[in-house]
Amino acid sequence: MPQTDAIQSLESLRDVLRAFAKERDWDQYHTPKNLSMALIAEAAELIEHFQWVAGEKSHQLDDKTRTSVEEELADILIYLVRISDKLDIDLYAAVARKIGINERKYPADKVRGSAKKYTEYE
Amino acid sequence: MPQTDAIQSLESLRDVLRAFAKERDWDQYHTPKNLSMALIAEAAELIEHFQWVAGEKSHQLDDKTRTSVEEELADILIYLVRISDKLDIDLYAAVARKIGINERKYPADKVRGSAKKYTEYE
Amino acid sequence: MPQTDAIQSLESLRDVLRAFAKERDWDQYHTPKNLSMALIAEAAELIEHFQWVAGEKSHQLDDKTRTSVEEELADILIYLVRISDKLDIDLYAAVARKIGINERKYPADKVRGSAKKYTEYE
Amino acid sequence: MPQTDAIQSLESLRDVLRAFAKERDWDQYHTPKNLSMALIAEAAELIEHFQWVAGEKSHQLDDKTRTSVEEELADILIYLVRISDKLDIDLYAAVARKIGINERKYPADKVRGSAKKYTEYE
Repeated sequence: MPQTDAIQSLESLRDVLRAFAKERDWDQYHTPKNLSMALIAEAAELIEHFQWVAGEKSHQLDDKTRTSVEEELADILIYLVRISDKLDIDLYAAVARKIGINERKYPADKVRGSAKKYTEYE
Repeated sequence: MPQTDAIQSLESLRDVLRAFAKERDWDQYHTPKNLSMALIAEAAELIEHFQWVAGEKSHQLDDKTRTSVEEELADILIYLVRISDKLDIDLYAAVARKIGINERKYPADKVRGSAKKYTEYE
Repeated sequence: MPQTDAIQSLESLRDVLRAFAKERDWDQYHTPKNLSMALIAEAAELIEHFQWVAGEKSHQLDDKTRTSVEEELADILIYLVRISDKLDIDLYAAVARKIGINERKYPADKVRGSAKKYTEYE
Repeated sequence: MPQTDAIQSLESLRDVLRAFAKERDWDQYHTPKNLSMALIAEAAELIEHFQWVAGEKSHQLDDKTRTSVEEELADILIYLVRISDKLDIDLYAAVARKIGINERKYPADKVRGSAKKYTEYE
């Protein structure tokens, strides 16, 4: 198994995750469908940390919560990279394209500070 | 605004997203709480592409669906990086730690090919 | 098809939904797995209405948003009743049991007004 | 507190939940925003039970899983009724209206058994 301390890029993370699944014979479960379910389950665990706290206090995490939040974020990245790998999608290319779309959709000079416009953001 | 074609690392993506929010005065909305909601909303848009198709067919995307899936994955990465930035969390360190936890929790020689064990995976 | 204006109970809703699926030959898609995905997708559409507004303002919905929120709530109930039907689960019995559990877990005299306790609510 | 064995309608459930929150002084946390987060977190707990199993096997639940699934469904109904109460929305009216919309959107004679049409269902 590749060393985890060598994870410094999405490509190296992808390779570690490939090896992890292969060693456990888990590829049979890793359909995009199942992985999308696993990803949203982790996103919900993240939500749980914030659901009863005020937005402006959601930056302040006690140590135990912080550790948990780090784990949920890690899990989300793991499943995100895994789905992208299974679908052969280049995440950086996808994100560059999406930011370009967002720039055209939300021109800075039109939407600046406007909650109204912003709430229509999707 | 930094060039999106220069996005080749999580750090450069973080910087692009910082600039994007700053230009629009959107940091006021970007609490971890709100960002966690935005992230799960994107994860659900991903789910929608797979909810009525069989798992083994979820690899086969027509062109239109593929483009949409790429956008959802991009959006998830955008919010993931944004939350991590707001909470000052190093995603690669978090993911390396989490994979270490998973390795101890699911020893390859014990869980190999075992759906039973795997279904207890969380 | 049963008249929708006759929906005044979970049982009558269940019957309407059974007829709706049968008329369309959709039972083949309505596995608990797929329905759970459809349900969370609707829950996410609900989330989207609230993600950028302050909590205390989330009661105030303009007419268009209110109509949309009503539709998301309806969709959630539809899928909830549909899953329960497919798994032969009595929702009222389940909810009575769960409230009993919650009462023991969160004794009113111990948790009253305590955000700390409350944030541990799951 | 109202008796939970008296819960035989959404109205009686609403009343029990009102009393439950009032006794704990929890209304301050029950904004539609926060409740929508709590609801999706429960929807995700439901998802977790199905994410690694094949769709056609997702009907077969062992006793422990069945009990958990019942609890998640109960929690979803609890938060659904709670949000509807806070927003003064009549769930049965909303669901009747939504089913009417769906009937026009998916005419039985056009979509019958058609996965293609169905996958465009939202």
